[in-house]
Amino acid sequence: MDRRLPMTEQNPTPPLDQLLHHGQGHRGLTRRVIDAFPEEHLFTYSVGGMRPFGAMAQELLRMSVPTLEGIVSRTWQSNDRDLPVSKQGLLAAWDDDTARIEALWPQIPAGRLQEDDVAFGQWPGKVSWILMYVIDNQIHHRGQGYVYLRALGIEPPAFYER
Amino acid sequence: MDRRLPMTEQNPTPPLDQLLHHGQGHRGLTRRVIDAFPEEHLFTYSVGGMRPFGAMAQELLRMSVPTLEGIVSRTWQSNDRDLPVSKQGLLAAWDDDTARIEALWPQIPAGRLQEDDVAFGQWPGKVSWILMYVIDNQIHHRGQGYVYLRALGIEPPAFYER
Repeated sequence: MDRRLPMTEQNPTPPLDQLLHHGQGHRGLTRRVIDAFPEEHLFTYSVGGMRPFGAMAQELLRMSVPTLEGIVSRTWQSNDRDLPVSKQGLLAAWDDDTARIEALWPQIPAGRLQEDDVAFGQWPGKVSWILMYVIDNQIHHRGQGYVYLRALGIEPPAFYER
Repeated sequence: MDRRLPMTEQNPTPPLDQLLHHGQGHRGLTRRVIDAFPEEHLFTYSVGGMRPFGAMAQELLRMSVPTLEGIVSRTWQSNDRDLPVSKQGLLAAWDDDTARIEALWPQIPAGRLQEDDVAFGQWPGKVSWILMYVIDNQIHHRGQGYVYLRALGIEPPAFYER
């Protein structure tokens, strides 16, 4: 072990453009999950008293672009745009955000991911952690959407297809 | 945009030791989810015809250490150990694996994450993608465990606590 380089130098993790590709692959899958819900269930159906999947997707919309904007600009502002309440509206907003993420991503300042910050003045952490949190939160809630779909008798899209 | 460095040089993603910390934080949360299940429901209760959470946790055990061993050694071997069928057994195996991951992680060869490989001879991709897939798959199934817990009337552990 003595002769090893410090891990940071020895073994960098995927470059940021690969992480964008990874994140956008997850967005594509989440879009297919939204699309798999029948309109009449998207904002009404739930299991165990949890939120309907449409409300979870609204949360993801509230979180994704505003977080990336905060990472890019170092200014944290919640987005108070009206959130979509229909399946078509949700899919359209989702697509808009996917394009905005594509445009914002290359504007992340050099070294920014290793800075400490407080997201929206509330959640302290390294910026890389804040960024991963947004992706992880999407995976988490999407997994819950899979259960709703199965409980509705609908086959969800394959997890490994991105 | 012209004067920017290529993104890879400009903005490396978190170093590998931070990714270990991130992944182990997820393992800690998943352990709390396993622990939140009453013994009598862990391997029997499910929603929508899906697997019980205990079976999902078995899948995570089958996948995590063998994948990391394949990444470290470049040799892909499924682990055919007996999988635990009790809550205590699952938690003990989970803790063993967490320690094994801690020990294996620093052995990832330099540059390995950027290599292409075929995990278990079946799933081709960049090694970083294979590694992320294992973490993402855990988040995905754990999110499903949250629904089961809620449906059982049990408050799941907080997602943001790691």
